[in-house]
Amino acid sequence: MKWNRNLPIGTRDKLFKEAASAYDMEHQVNRSFHERGYQRIETPVIEFDDVFSAIDDMNLYRFFDTKGRLTVLRPDMTSPIGRVISTTGVTPPLKLCYSGKVFRANEELAGERNEMTQAGIEIIGFASIKAEIECITSAIAVLRELGMTDFQIEIGHAAIYQAVIQSLALQANDEEIFRQALQNKSLFGIRSFVASHPSAMDAFILALPRLFGSVDTIGEARALTDNRLILEALTQMETIVQVVNAPEHLSVDIGLVQELHYYTGAIFRGYADMSAVHFLSGGRYDSLLAQFGEENWPAVGLALNLDEIVSLKRRTLKKQEHIAKTFIHYSLETTQLAEEVLAKTPNSSLSFFDELAESMAYAKKWQYHKLIDVSGNGLREIDPEKEVLS
Amino acid sequence: MKWNRNLPIGTRDKLFKEAASAYDMEHQVNRSFHERGYQRIETPVIEFDDVFSAIDDMNLYRFFDTKGRLTVLRPDMTSPIGRVISTTGVTPPLKLCYSGKVFRANEELAGERNEMTQAGIEIIGFASIKAEIECITSAIAVLRELGMTDFQIEIGHAAIYQAVIQSLALQANDEEIFRQALQNKSLFGIRSFVASHPSAMDAFILALPRLFGSVDTIGEARALTDNRLILEALTQMETIVQVVNAPEHLSVDIGLVQELHYYTGAIFRGYADMSAVHFLSGGRYDSLLAQFGEENWPAVGLALNLDEIVSLKRRTLKKQEHIAKTFIHYSLETTQLAEEVLAKTPNSSLSFFDELAESMAYAKKWQYHKLIDVSGNGLREIDPEKEVLS
Repeated sequence: MKWNRNLPIGTRDKLFKEAASAYDMEHQVNRSFHERGYQRIETPVIEFDDVFSAIDDMNLYRFFDTKGRLTVLRPDMTSPIGRVISTTGVTPPLKLCYSGKVFRANEELAGERNEMTQAGIEIIGFASIKAEIECITSAIAVLRELGMTDFQIEIGHAAIYQAVIQSLALQANDEEIFRQALQNKSLFGIRSFVASHPSAMDAFILALPRLFGSVDTIGEARALTDNRLILEALTQMETIVQVVNAPEHLSVDIGLVQELHYYTGAIFRGYADMSAVHFLSGGRYDSLLAQFGEENWPAVGLALNLDEIVSLKRRTLKKQEHIAKTFIHYSLETTQLAEEVLAKTPNSSLSFFDELAESMAYAKKWQYHKLIDVSGNGLREIDPEKEVLS
Repeated sequence: MKWNRNLPIGTRDKLFKEAASAYDMEHQVNRSFHERGYQRIETPVIEFDDVFSAIDDMNLYRFFDTKGRLTVLRPDMTSPIGRVISTTGVTPPLKLCYSGKVFRANEELAGERNEMTQAGIEIIGFASIKAEIECITSAIAVLRELGMTDFQIEIGHAAIYQAVIQSLALQANDEEIFRQALQNKSLFGIRSFVASHPSAMDAFILALPRLFGSVDTIGEARALTDNRLILEALTQMETIVQVVNAPEHLSVDIGLVQELHYYTGAIFRGYADMSAVHFLSGGRYDSLLAQFGEENWPAVGLALNLDEIVSLKRRTLKKQEHIAKTFIHYSLETTQLAEEVLAKTPNSSLSFFDELAESMAYAKKWQYHKLIDVSGNGLREIDPEKEVLS
């Protein structure tokens, strides 16, 4: 048979230790959120297209079902959770956690992943800033539990960007130019934008590309504006940084813009030191849930990109110690005895070869430390590296 | 916004305890396989269509990628694992385990699930019957660990069906009629088939619909045929039943036919007592891997349908005892203290309400046993059922 040996764009296989450690990490993150009082929710991978109408600027995997309705592989979990709340009679306040695959139909570009494993939380129905603080606090707790030490969570605020847009009464095209310049922290781009859109906010806007770093940046920003919405946003950011009280992991970015447009309040992103890709993203989105029903619930959420964290850990952590492994050879007649040896020997595994020589060769190839032969009378221990069977 | 509140056909949400117990079960099954020496493998949900060319009779979710290539949401994990082995330089013998979602584009029919969570093992490169025995033994061990007691694993053999087809030299259309009659254990269908295809095997074929049950059935079947392939298959089935040695969980079905056509040796299916839907399926498939490359590896595999097991357990197990839960109210100033109380109080959860009265109402609604207020001076314990705040 002649067949296509490639994988679809942006997908990959995980084998053995990599697969096991990614799976264990997902479980650990879930357990950690569960212990903080979050309740698990699982939604389908396949949803109807209109669930994601708030995410209009993302490449989605779309296809028609047998009745000709447009369906989508979910690109995130936040919108499906909104759908659940509006259709199932479950009422907020709620603290939810989730994990699973999400899909983005990116074109062929280095480093982009089209299938990702995400885990996260959604805190729904709480207007208090306690919800933002909890989000960041629990993220730091989870990341520390995973053994990560060198990471930064950047705090920004969606209202800052919104205030500039509204104050300048920007049209869609100009807004896109402004957004791009801000996202790239392009001093030149921002200067040229300000030149063509002069206003009382010039000094503040011009400073945005460099207004990131320590908490002192908030004071700098405050000195540059008298916009009430921006000042309120800065005060919220300050409260979050003070109450979370983890200066080694927190920084601020006054000009932070999220890819998703549905955020309304504080927003956050997590990076590992020395890495440009963020593995954590979230924020407050107080108007998304209104799209699914009459009631408008305030909400704060956070998603961890577990694949990114796995590859960061692979780079930074030392190689795991080699675990001593035992291989158990047996005959059909000694199957029950072999089962008993398996049960009481840590890191042991049964051999399904009929011939002892085959089990020997396999144990040597895969670096087993010991071979136990239960095929004859009683047990016999063999060192696969030394003994040669004649 | 007007939007479609339904879910796509065959999908559903899982909430709270159901979601948590399904997730915990998946983890427990994986850990159990891992402890028996299986190595985890994870393949993408999206694959190119030709990976599944051996599964031509199943409804698949298909769509084109941006380059116009036909892609598929995987309907099982066995074919992707075949692709991995033929493309990555990983050489058998191997013992692999996996878990994750699989997809079938079934039409609107009661009870069919289009998104399912499967967990399973693939034992690749072992020709010995030890591999079949291991598959069934480890399945029984896992199911017992999950607390299941009333289940049956039926053993059949793909060579029996194949021997009949070959011996009668059936064409595709007649084979389909025979397969349908056998799958439905239709005495009438088999009689009418035999009437139109008389042969030396008449007595054996006529008996097939009733040749299932205890291990003695193998002897009955043996008395009805002298076909060498069938007799060999019966001997293998007998060996498996004897060595696994779990008569309370094993039965045989001489006429068992699997939905998937790639099996070549012993086949198995698991049922809970009183349920018609099988939650376990597997068998030996010694020629599937040859479709992906030059080398032909013998292989035995087994998949558990975890959603089916979750719903069986929901029906049979008693309701979980209600766990005592504590809700912690705090103010921004006492956040650190609240964190400490959270860490040392089992089954506790933070409240993100600003007002104590809101926390009280929430704790009462969700049946928390205790509310701890750390918003004032020191801790104060409150019974949400009794105390009324003025």
